[in-house]
Amino acid sequence: MSEAPAIRFGVIGCAYIARKVSRAIKLAPNATLHAIGSRSIDKARRFAAANGYPEGAKVYGSYEEVLDDPEVDAVYVPLPTSLHVRWAVLAAQKGKHVLLEKPVALNASQFDEIIEACESSGVQLMDGTMWMHHPRTNQMRDFLSDANRFGQLKSIQTFFTFAADPDFLENDIRAKPDLDALGSLGDEGWYCVRAILWAANFELPKTVIASRNPVFNKAGVIMACGASLHWEDGKVATFYCSFLANLAMDITAVGTKGTLHVHDFIIPYEEKEASFFASSETGFDDLVTRWASQPSKHTVNTDLPQEVLMVREFSRLVAEIKFKNSKPEKKWPTISRKTQLVLDAVKASIEKGFEPVQIQE
Amino acid sequence: MSEAPAIRFGVIGCAYIARKVSRAIKLAPNATLHAIGSRSIDKARRFAAANGYPEGAKVYGSYEEVLDDPEVDAVYVPLPTSLHVRWAVLAAQKGKHVLLEKPVALNASQFDEIIEACESSGVQLMDGTMWMHHPRTNQMRDFLSDANRFGQLKSIQTFFTFAADPDFLENDIRAKPDLDALGSLGDEGWYCVRAILWAANFELPKTVIASRNPVFNKAGVIMACGASLHWEDGKVATFYCSFLANLAMDITAVGTKGTLHVHDFIIPYEEKEASFFASSETGFDDLVTRWASQPSKHTVNTDLPQEVLMVREFSRLVAEIKFKNSKPEKKWPTISRKTQLVLDAVKASIEKGFEPVQIQE
Repeated sequence: MSEAPAIRFGVIGCAYIARKVSRAIKLAPNATLHAIGSRSIDKARRFAAANGYPEGAKVYGSYEEVLDDPEVDAVYVPLPTSLHVRWAVLAAQKGKHVLLEKPVALNASQFDEIIEACESSGVQLMDGTMWMHHPRTNQMRDFLSDANRFGQLKSIQTFFTFAADPDFLENDIRAKPDLDALGSLGDEGWYCVRAILWAANFELPKTVIASRNPVFNKAGVIMACGASLHWEDGKVATFYCSFLANLAMDITAVGTKGTLHVHDFIIPYEEKEASFFASSETGFDDLVTRWASQPSKHTVNTDLPQEVLMVREFSRLVAEIKFKNSKPEKKWPTISRKTQLVLDAVKASIEKGFEPVQIQE
Repeated sequence: MSEAPAIRFGVIGCAYIARKVSRAIKLAPNATLHAIGSRSIDKARRFAAANGYPEGAKVYGSYEEVLDDPEVDAVYVPLPTSLHVRWAVLAAQKGKHVLLEKPVALNASQFDEIIEACESSGVQLMDGTMWMHHPRTNQMRDFLSDANRFGQLKSIQTFFTFAADPDFLENDIRAKPDLDALGSLGDEGWYCVRAILWAANFELPKTVIASRNPVFNKAGVIMACGASLHWEDGKVATFYCSFLANLAMDITAVGTKGTLHVHDFIIPYEEKEASFFASSETGFDDLVTRWASQPSKHTVNTDLPQEVLMVREFSRLVAEIKFKNSKPEKKWPTISRKTQLVLDAVKASIEKGFEPVQIQE
């Protein structure tokens, strides 16, 4: 690692997920917890104490004060999605690099405001999709990119479901139309769509068709939905996401020569090791009574959990900008935007009675 | 087992799959290989010799002779799908019980002719979907039926793909419009749809929508396709089948309380043991950095391979009719017909430009 000083993070909001990311900032070798802000200073104090903020960390009773702290290099934004555009844009305008929870916005045009603000200020923007940073993800990517082992991608199916409790379904921000209006689609569907785009080398599909019978709560927020995504070359993907079914998080990808399975792609079963299953040119015995070979299990170890690797990579990019005058890495906001574009299309298809929606970049 | 004499099978046609089923008849304790018929008597002789037919087995140079052999109790029909209605109806009319390869017909109305002929003659009809008879399938069914461990079914995804070689794609019966006109849908899609219906307790979906961009060969036969199936209660299923992608055969089913995964449901990795993965009320640790528990692997052993269990069950039903005057078991043709109805709807949706098609029973 570089010996540059650690990147100083300010966290705005004491969301549940901010506990995990605060720990990740603490554990990242090139980052440090510098400030926490909440609309309630008491809440911020309790949060700092409970989450191991260092002695000298600043505790603020507003988000603005975090953004106005000249020592803060980067801001982590775990706020409800409806607040992203306001606070991410303000953070960028104040020269802070932005690590932004997903979904990044309520729609792509809102996210474009954030991108524009970050580009104007020359700050790094990255979303909080942790699994992208796990070394397993790179190894799976290598498999998918291997013309001999995997060949050409033909179909992808992804799932993310978990059974939310009644309190969540009533009171969680992801059940509130004024907070995380995209509900399960924005929360779980984000990961499904990201995984599909990742498997497709971030080539956007041409057409998106939402599945019939999505489930809404009383407030009209999506609790369960799905969609199929279609590319011009015949590739097809489907996903399903739900707050109303037991935990599942799968990617199944089949190519002309290979098959990939992973069952814990978003949160690995274990923090420090994660597996996937790959098979290539698989066949049967002569009488078709058994497989000639079984899929092989690939286990990848990591000393640092994926969320720490995310913070480390973000901080590395920020340090490059801060200390070496580099430009922000556009890859990250680009894939955030593509993910959001597909979410928008799924939502539009639902609203249009499950009609096909063309993706326009 | 009953001590009744073994059921005497006649096999009509020397298809590749007939080798596997001949072996299964040989291994089944209540069945025996009695006759093989082919349009070429030389071919029939070679087939009998290569597949361990007993010394006294009859070898015929036509299918008719098999059907006319008064000692034949039951006929196994591995012929191309376009010939099913003719030969299955004739077999039934001649009083032979019918074990019929899948897909059972080119469409449900053709299959209705077969059902009618079998009902008129009081003979058993069963299709050749082997995995239905594996003891693992019963154990998975128990899991899906368990209100505490699995709860209410919400979503199912199934896959069946294998990479056919160029010779298959040109010359196999499953690539010929006059033989197996349903192509990949009839062959692989059959299993996907059967698995979906099986998981849904054979409740038919209300609406079927084919995926865009199915792949056809030059002769217009489906080489790859998919669809989504929708029930009124909000259940949704998707499947994908292809001759153009590496081997995969998955069921993923999520219920309100449980998740099921199986990756070799059609042909188990090994002949005598097979596994599936089940999890119930799965959650994360407090910081959402790892799973609180991992899916458990359930391994089921079987002394007899699934195709032998299929022949044994079919022969048991035939013996009940032959020796105990029982009525044919309607469960088997009923689920064959439902599977065929869904295939018909997928095909209709493809032909209608991927419009939703309502299933009418």
